[in-house]
Amino acid sequence: MGRPLHNERFAETALPKRTGLPVFSADALSSVAYAPDEIVLTLALAGVAAVTISPWVGLAVVLVTAVVVAAYRQNLRVYPSGGGDYEIASKNLGRRAGVAVGAALMVDFILVVAVSTSAAAQYLAAAFPRLVDHRIEVALVGILIAGLLNLRGIRFMGRAAVVPTYLFVVVMLALIGTGLVKSATGTLAPVPSASWEVLPAGSGDTAWTTLAVIMLILRAFSSGAVSVTGVESVTGAVAYLRKPRAQNASTILTIMGAISCVLLLGTMYLVGRTGAVVVLDPVAQLRIDGQAPAEDFYQNPLLGQLARAVFGLETPLFYVVILATVMVLVFAASTAFSGFPSLGSRLARDSFLPRQLKSRGDRFAFTNGVIALLVAAAILTLVFRASVNDLVQLYVVGVFASFTVTQAGMVRHWRRQRRHVHAPEQRRRMIGPVVLAHVALVLCATVLVIVLVTKFAQGAWITLLAMSVLGGLMLAIRRHYDSVDRELRLVAGSPVRALPSRVHAMIIVASVRKPVMRALAYARASRPSTLEALVVDVSQTATDRILQDWERLEIPVPITVLDAPYRDSVQPVIDHLRRIRRRSPRDLFVVYLPEYVVSSRWEQALHNQSARALANRLRLEPGVMIASVPWQVDSSHVDSPPAGSQHPVSQQAESQDQGHSGENVAQTGTQHPTSTERP
Amino acid sequence: MGRPLHNERFAETALPKRTGLPVFSADALSSVAYAPDEIVLTLALAGVAAVTISPWVGLAVVLVTAVVVAAYRQNLRVYPSGGGDYEIASKNLGRRAGVAVGAALMVDFILVVAVSTSAAAQYLAAAFPRLVDHRIEVALVGILIAGLLNLRGIRFMGRAAVVPTYLFVVVMLALIGTGLVKSATGTLAPVPSASWEVLPAGSGDTAWTTLAVIMLILRAFSSGAVSVTGVESVTGAVAYLRKPRAQNASTILTIMGAISCVLLLGTMYLVGRTGAVVVLDPVAQLRIDGQAPAEDFYQNPLLGQLARAVFGLETPLFYVVILATVMVLVFAASTAFSGFPSLGSRLARDSFLPRQLKSRGDRFAFTNGVIALLVAAAILTLVFRASVNDLVQLYVVGVFASFTVTQAGMVRHWRRQRRHVHAPEQRRRMIGPVVLAHVALVLCATVLVIVLVTKFAQGAWITLLAMSVLGGLMLAIRRHYDSVDRELRLVAGSPVRALPSRVHAMIIVASVRKPVMRALAYARASRPSTLEALVVDVSQTATDRILQDWERLEIPVPITVLDAPYRDSVQPVIDHLRRIRRRSPRDLFVVYLPEYVVSSRWEQALHNQSARALANRLRLEPGVMIASVPWQVDSSHVDSPPAGSQHPVSQQAESQDQGHSGENVAQTGTQHPTSTERP
Repeated sequence: MGRPLHNERFAETALPKRTGLPVFSADALSSVAYAPDEIVLTLALAGVAAVTISPWVGLAVVLVTAVVVAAYRQNLRVYPSGGGDYEIASKNLGRRAGVAVGAALMVDFILVVAVSTSAAAQYLAAAFPRLVDHRIEVALVGILIAGLLNLRGIRFMGRAAVVPTYLFVVVMLALIGTGLVKSATGTLAPVPSASWEVLPAGSGDTAWTTLAVIMLILRAFSSGAVSVTGVESVTGAVAYLRKPRAQNASTILTIMGAISCVLLLGTMYLVGRTGAVVVLDPVAQLRIDGQAPAEDFYQNPLLGQLARAVFGLETPLFYVVILATVMVLVFAASTAFSGFPSLGSRLARDSFLPRQLKSRGDRFAFTNGVIALLVAAAILTLVFRASVNDLVQLYVVGVFASFTVTQAGMVRHWRRQRRHVHAPEQRRRMIGPVVLAHVALVLCATVLVIVLVTKFAQGAWITLLAMSVLGGLMLAIRRHYDSVDRELRLVAGSPVRALPSRVHAMIIVASVRKPVMRALAYARASRPSTLEALVVDVSQTATDRILQDWERLEIPVPITVLDAPYRDSVQPVIDHLRRIRRRSPRDLFVVYLPEYVVSSRWEQALHNQSARALANRLRLEPGVMIASVPWQVDSSHVDSPPAGSQHPVSQQAESQDQGHSGENVAQTGTQHPTSTERP
Repeated sequence: MGRPLHNERFAETALPKRTGLPVFSADALSSVAYAPDEIVLTLALAGVAAVTISPWVGLAVVLVTAVVVAAYRQNLRVYPSGGGDYEIASKNLGRRAGVAVGAALMVDFILVVAVSTSAAAQYLAAAFPRLVDHRIEVALVGILIAGLLNLRGIRFMGRAAVVPTYLFVVVMLALIGTGLVKSATGTLAPVPSASWEVLPAGSGDTAWTTLAVIMLILRAFSSGAVSVTGVESVTGAVAYLRKPRAQNASTILTIMGAISCVLLLGTMYLVGRTGAVVVLDPVAQLRIDGQAPAEDFYQNPLLGQLARAVFGLETPLFYVVILATVMVLVFAASTAFSGFPSLGSRLARDSFLPRQLKSRGDRFAFTNGVIALLVAAAILTLVFRASVNDLVQLYVVGVFASFTVTQAGMVRHWRRQRRHVHAPEQRRRMIGPVVLAHVALVLCATVLVIVLVTKFAQGAWITLLAMSVLGGLMLAIRRHYDSVDRELRLVAGSPVRALPSRVHAMIIVASVRKPVMRALAYARASRPSTLEALVVDVSQTATDRILQDWERLEIPVPITVLDAPYRDSVQPVIDHLRRIRRRSPRDLFVVYLPEYVVSSRWEQALHNQSARALANRLRLEPGVMIASVPWQVDSSHVDSPPAGSQHPVSQQAESQDQGHSGENVAQTGTQHPTSTERP
């Protein structure tokens, strides 16, 4: 995807505030596209009366948002480096807390992609009814688009993301503003769903107890809390911003929080005024003119309903709202695609994930992680059939688990700080942050408990399970690396430089052809103490032919035939090696394996299978080195290199064609990497 | 699966006639379990009147069987080596015909497994109604059992296969004999299905034209021709029989053909006498007491219906018939599991399949092929939902395609022979075989045409497509091997022994730990002309640490830092190598890669990833050898080997634990393979 980017241009990829804001707040802002629906449809389970309190639930969510944003601004001031929640948790609460947060965030990144693209599919279906039955496919395409956008790199993202996020904010503000004016002047068109009868879910007879209603309100609140998500993605993205990074991130956080609150409050107010409603199960819960709707009845999401009410049915503005919403949702998914691999490389650096994930791809967005996230989000979308409601249940858990642990870490941090600070002036200045950290902790923990209690069976258990499995895996990987490190560490005074006394070279001969002759030449060039060719006698005819060729060509190397009574070509070599090693255990054994290199992957499957099996087995033997001598087969070229010449210049040109990338090869001539030679 | 078998014991696995017969005729004999049903249900498409001619269709099939068996006895006399149809076709008609037959047979092997186990599931469901809805699962379990039985090796198969095949033949003869007696004495119980009304398929109004009825009879005949299948598996199995092999195979073929004809004729006669019927679509075609049967109505296969009529409802003999049938069907599937890999290794020997398939597994039955067949048959069974009727359509095509090409080969063979023979006596003796070959060719070709015409849309096209794809693949593989062979062949007088003038050794250092020190020791032991360590500067911290360690440990090898401006650890090494090679193009470059070997597969995924990427890239460079220096990490052991010692004896014992198999290792001491040392 695009040209590889030079290290020196890394600085250029840092984003200014005006592009950083849209890139990293798309996640948080876009949640206004589904959070109101979640609140209303949860309350509607108790019937239409319960829906009237939805603006108050919205207000509670806004309060939580405000506290969390304030707390995260504080966190940024203390940890400006961009490690985010993972850093705060591991530094203050230790390895296990860090891993818990890391696992929670990784699960959340997957879920934000699945939720956002599923919501986008829902909106597209509202505008284009033909897509109603293809929402899963639409969501999958959305995931792919989000992933591909990100593979192009973060800078490209920034430029492109300006459009949808700003467009969404402008359109939403216009929608809310116009709506408020029309509502005040009484010219707001009626919403069709306001006239529908909403039946309580379950058997209509049993009355809702007070406790049940309270539980339902809490459940609606915890669904709406999905609107708070996205805050953590800003703190994790500090590294991508221009300097002063932490301060810029803090500003972005504030603006984002403010806009988010305005959008949510405005939307919930208009929902309350219009009486718009969505329900979980239209056939069971809705009665339109006394009739249950048809099986394929499709509900317009709340933003769509409001757009129709505010802008009318005739204007194209309805489609503008829908498209802006879809675009911002897809870009929200994109933010996860930059955060996920970044977190992964952070975890890999601390040895909680395979070390190869440390390395960044060619274009600063990390290709490996993007692909992993793509696959995981696609699987989730398929399993939950792109149902936003189902996915949101899983999503909120992870986010608030991470918030809670992080705030616990901050509380611990401030307590430690206070222990070292004795000047009353400084102590007094600490009171604000300390109180904020405690309030945020209590609040986040409360929300987490509410979420777990009200949503455990609805899917929260899946997230908890995924987090535990992922966390356990990370700890196991770390333990493995630690134990390997302990074993391989060089201890002072260890006789590391003892050279093997003699070198025994062996060449495995499967047929006397050019690759074997090259391997022989290479083996002889390194002048071993002994050199022998080995034939494993799997087939009598093949063995006879090799021996004949050997004599005919007068090859000056002794050849040994190894019996293969079990027709297995590997074990006889191992047995032979062990017999010699028993006589001279401190010697080095070098096994030369001629290998065929062909251009295409399917052709490669036709070669080297037995050599590979032997190499894998030899790796388990002590004192053995495996020397593979490649022969570049290029039968597609008309003029093959002259027979027997070991490394002709013509071949060099050939292999450049197969090389890394045409571009890089072309640069080799002009670019001079600095080499530091030390004695 | 069991102990590996020594080469010398190969002779012991040869089967005598009394076990060879049941093993290799299970396929042919078991087809009487589904061929009659196919004939009857095809005819029943035209209504109940058409069913009455089913015994005559059966007779036609028996005639074809007789001719094919006679022709194959002849073939065995001419080609006694056991190559079977593939050998006859390739020797007489060339490479393409051989490949066509090979592909057809491979497809047939897959289908015989799918058809037999699906039929077995049908019979089990007839006896145990609870299995009716689980026939796919039952068929899959059957495939697995058939495959596992075969992995145990052919000898074990022989001993076990005696029981089901002989039991089936005895039970069937008893069924037919008793049936004939009861039918003659008029004491045969009525079959329920005889009293059912059978409606013609499609709209009941349109009368069947004469042409349509003829087509239907031909279609019924071509379905019944599935009974002829299995003949080819005897000729392909010659190698497994005791000497005189071809003669024994011929005898088996005759007995098998005779039994097969008796069983089919007897069954069809009884079906005709009782008026038993099965239809393709019970709900549309059957009327029981004027009523269409329920959706979940399950038809008892014909053998089951006959068993009930002959032996009565009260006796357990019905269950004996069913179980004998199921057992012989599963064993028929097993014969494919020995034939398939045997054919595969034959094709691999002629370079039509990857060469690694040439080698036999540990226990003479070829493990690779067994697994491939298992997977392919399971996929087919799933795709066609274990429907015998659907699978039979695919099956007959391949068999008769192979018969036809083979007989064409035989006709060509005899024509060539006649050209060289001039003595009138000898020529006269040839008349019989020549006529037989021609008759068989015409008959098989006619059947093939009938099959293709009547069944093309029903699935024959799938087989043709699969055969073409497989055949094309085989030809492509052969072309690839041929071109590689041409390129690698040693031409007389080529300067194959030119030694590289100097050896440049390079060690890639990712961290200064024991594996690197070992690699250094090995590199120094082989005394290269130059030796340098290379650090790719992907991370500043890591590079600094390596350089510090290098100085601290006073390692007497120069170390070079390679710039990695694109954070790619592979390309800088390649560039460096090319720079040096430009100065001295005829030298040898050895790149030493320290590798970590850990015990479990998931742990292995955590290591060597960048080394592997580098090795794969280096293989494309001319004049480069890759030396991998394994370090056996064994953190699970409490007492790790003393640091720095290169190959301590304690480690040798350790790696034996990880070795090939405990048994083989134990034998190393007592068994002395012969080694032929030549100068």
